[in-house]
Amino acid sequence: MNKINVTAQNIDSLEKQFRVNLINSLVGFKSVHLVGTKNNSGQTNLAIFSSVTHIGSNPPLLGFISRPAAFERHTFENIKETGFFTLNQIHSEILKQAHQTSARYDKSISEFDATGLTPEFKNDFFAPFVKESAIQIALELTEIIQIKANNTVLVIGNIVNIYLPKNTIETDGFINHQNLNTLACSGLDTYFYANKISRFSYAKPNKELQII
Amino acid sequence: MNKINVTAQNIDSLEKQFRVNLINSLVGFKSVHLVGTKNNSGQTNLAIFSSVTHIGSNPPLLGFISRPAAFERHTFENIKETGFFTLNQIHSEILKQAHQTSARYDKSISEFDATGLTPEFKNDFFAPFVKESAIQIALELTEIIQIKANNTVLVIGNIVNIYLPKNTIETDGFINHQNLNTLACSGLDTYFYANKISRFSYAKPNKELQII
Repeated sequence: MNKINVTAQNIDSLEKQFRVNLINSLVGFKSVHLVGTKNNSGQTNLAIFSSVTHIGSNPPLLGFISRPAAFERHTFENIKETGFFTLNQIHSEILKQAHQTSARYDKSISEFDATGLTPEFKNDFFAPFVKESAIQIALELTEIIQIKANNTVLVIGNIVNIYLPKNTIETDGFINHQNLNTLACSGLDTYFYANKISRFSYAKPNKELQII
Repeated sequence: MNKINVTAQNIDSLEKQFRVNLINSLVGFKSVHLVGTKNNSGQTNLAIFSSVTHIGSNPPLLGFISRPAAFERHTFENIKETGFFTLNQIHSEILKQAHQTSARYDKSISEFDATGLTPEFKNDFFAPFVKESAIQIALELTEIIQIKANNTVLVIGNIVNIYLPKNTIETDGFINHQNLNTLACSGLDTYFYANKISRFSYAKPNKELQII
């Protein structure tokens, strides 16, 4: 395949928005979530993130990348202040509202009010869930890790509760996201459905893979 | 929507493989890559990772989560030893071989040889690319960050070169992965195509989103 070559020097010299689009879309398809928080004055916040990553299963940990307070980052500030946040699945029926949470609203405005998504509080958990999301995850802050290379942070939370529709978990624990219309994203603004190609057996040396 | 509730206590008591499947599939769709490395003796290694995350655009940084050497982790060891690695896109024609790299081969065996994927060396970069991948990224190690919560590490690299087919980058910098048949994955073993729903304009308060 004939390829072009984009060097570090080329990247350095790119126009800012072109560069942002290129590097953000480079990794392919990413998970996308709404992060729900509340500050100690009771003000809720909701923001879309495309960097949520599985950190480990035992203990059950998820993390995401945030810029710190170079300018206002309400989600990160609320998590630091209170220690709690939620991750909420995005499906096609709430996609437009989910994307709209990326607008820079004033701190006094909740993105729940601005977009019409519904805050849901349950089981005495401090942070709000998104009622419309099929999967809602309650997390307690475990660690904030500084990334020196670009002054961002990796925020890690421990899963304390998962809410999801009945019959979503298959017999071996796998969650069928395709049935829930869970979306993926690429870059900063483009959203996708996913269609299964295949599931493979556990790989072993010198053993033919099976489709399961 | 009627939901079931999986508490931290429930998660704790799950059978190990069920728990691994549940927590690994929880975040939805993830990017998936082949990480190419070589040690100082010239032995190549190739391994599939589903945790590659965009860390920042300026400088251009990508990262992924790795378990350290609780048992042998050749990819991580090679990166620590040499400071270089590649990320290689996975498409449907190499999917089976890509998944097969997750088998625990002995250190003396290169996954390139074991799976039939082709190592490619170019522009004097130390680590091997996967010739069959549409997108190949050369990275230099920037930072290894310890995650205390579960004794894993976040490996961060600076992009020094990107190779990709002509006409893959749209006029605003966005990479069209759907045209390249880039795959996503969910959990440890399930792979997906992605189909675009929509791309939205930059969100601003009190402004209707446009589909672009």
